[in-house]
Amino acid sequence: MVSKLIEKIQKTKAPICVGLDPMLGYIPEQVKEKAFKELGETLEGAAEAVWQFNKTIVDATADLIPAVKPQIAMYEQFGIEGLKVYERTVKYCQDKGLLVIGDVKRGDIGSTSAAYAAGHLGTVQVESRTYEGFHSDFVTVNPYLGTDGVKPFVDVCSQCDRGIFVLVKTSNPSSGEFQDRVIDGRPLYELVAEKVVEWGEASMDGEYSNVGAVVGATYPEMSRILRRLMPKTYFLVPGYGAQGATAQDLRYCFNEDGLGAIVNSSRGIIAAYKKEQYASFGADHFGDAARQAVVDMIADIGSVL
Amino acid sequence: MVSKLIEKIQKTKAPICVGLDPMLGYIPEQVKEKAFKELGETLEGAAEAVWQFNKTIVDATADLIPAVKPQIAMYEQFGIEGLKVYERTVKYCQDKGLLVIGDVKRGDIGSTSAAYAAGHLGTVQVESRTYEGFHSDFVTVNPYLGTDGVKPFVDVCSQCDRGIFVLVKTSNPSSGEFQDRVIDGRPLYELVAEKVVEWGEASMDGEYSNVGAVVGATYPEMSRILRRLMPKTYFLVPGYGAQGATAQDLRYCFNEDGLGAIVNSSRGIIAAYKKEQYASFGADHFGDAARQAVVDMIADIGSVL
Repeated sequence: MVSKLIEKIQKTKAPICVGLDPMLGYIPEQVKEKAFKELGETLEGAAEAVWQFNKTIVDATADLIPAVKPQIAMYEQFGIEGLKVYERTVKYCQDKGLLVIGDVKRGDIGSTSAAYAAGHLGTVQVESRTYEGFHSDFVTVNPYLGTDGVKPFVDVCSQCDRGIFVLVKTSNPSSGEFQDRVIDGRPLYELVAEKVVEWGEASMDGEYSNVGAVVGATYPEMSRILRRLMPKTYFLVPGYGAQGATAQDLRYCFNEDGLGAIVNSSRGIIAAYKKEQYASFGADHFGDAARQAVVDMIADIGSVL
Repeated sequence: MVSKLIEKIQKTKAPICVGLDPMLGYIPEQVKEKAFKELGETLEGAAEAVWQFNKTIVDATADLIPAVKPQIAMYEQFGIEGLKVYERTVKYCQDKGLLVIGDVKRGDIGSTSAAYAAGHLGTVQVESRTYEGFHSDFVTVNPYLGTDGVKPFVDVCSQCDRGIFVLVKTSNPSSGEFQDRVIDGRPLYELVAEKVVEWGEASMDGEYSNVGAVVGATYPEMSRILRRLMPKTYFLVPGYGAQGATAQDLRYCFNEDGLGAIVNSSRGIIAAYKKEQYASFGADHFGDAARQAVVDMIADIGSVL
């Protein structure tokens, strides 16, 4: 699967993904009003507003980008209705030719991780029949439980040509509380990185592995070290834009071949119309604002590669 | 919320919860056959089999126990249809007077963790209206992202009278890969434990905190230390029975007042009819077998308290 991602990145010349994290506060009033008028101020109404918002963003940006990253929590908060829109968004994006990175941060043990992997990446068996669950192309995985928790995902990567990104060093302010703690002279995130390399050897796909890593852009010195430790690991990089990281900070996430990383931006793209820089588009043209923000992000990152 | 859990534990004299992890392989053939005959070998059919299985287990055991712990992965693997049955199971158990520990192991950053907390424990706002999502009483939370990831859950614990169990030392064989690594002379799980205590101070409910910890029964020496480090923290204890831990191994998880821990058993209860010990019940009476397994588990744990 990572070879497909690379192919799409090379075709679009855009090592980026758009984070579909549709908080209600990001959705323009006219979209919400229409949905609530049709379905009431209900979970169905909220889900419909999310769906219409997503559809406009995806339609406006799909030809420019290789992938999207829906954050499942933003859908899960609306219960079943929200998750139906998550599923619909995954399918819609795939039909548009985009790869979908389900940001689910799942992780459990043995058969439980296997169930998550089946439901989100692979297929589930019901007697003699085989079904797809949420069926994204990649998911994010939490490593706290060790190999037991990650291996079932890796197995599905190999069997079904899928990919994962394991949390190594996250972009948030408190990520250092545990991840940076020093063990035998080295921070925990480096030990996790070494395991990611080990797990990844079981699912190589060309020069890179289907087992990638989440490496926050907000800690550039750390990403430089992690890049060296994990030369064949693709990085999913959060933290650009709204979280404060700049294109300069991203340099170390890439290999010398210009590959090795895909940078996510959520708020900076999907809520671009709210930023002064794109205010002239107006809320009615939030899709166009998102498109311009994507164009600018591609140019910004391109300038350091 | 933890005071409600304690009250129910004292009333039932059963510091246990039944893990509702309905893998299709655990469900008796007659239950599956009926569901597949009605709805075909479909995701709906699988979900219906899970629902009928759960209902029988819950009906057979509800008067003996304080709580259940559905493992959401086992539902999520069947997509939307599975998650409908998860929701239905949560509601059914609560209507029966049981507390529900949603074993979701979520954890992300800031607004994303807040969305998970709203969707699983609290309420979600849609304009002027307030809705419940999956609405369990407790959930399990992964601490790898640090305070940013956990605090939004703690806030909901305080605001909505709910509880969480943070993964500290899990019961699986590879849990030591990261959790046992030594930092300044102490294993990572002790540092997580100290954070759990700190987070828990913001949501005390009587003698104990609404912020609990997952501490595997499979590592008794570690649970002895963790019990001392976290005197006011309730432990959710996996690993009893099928994973190999005995009642003796559980002793250290409890405080001297006989409180402080709730022990989970999943396979050992819900698939009891498959064990030689309960084979005489037969697959037709799998609920009765589960009930007897609960009675035996209560006696077994009672013997060491």
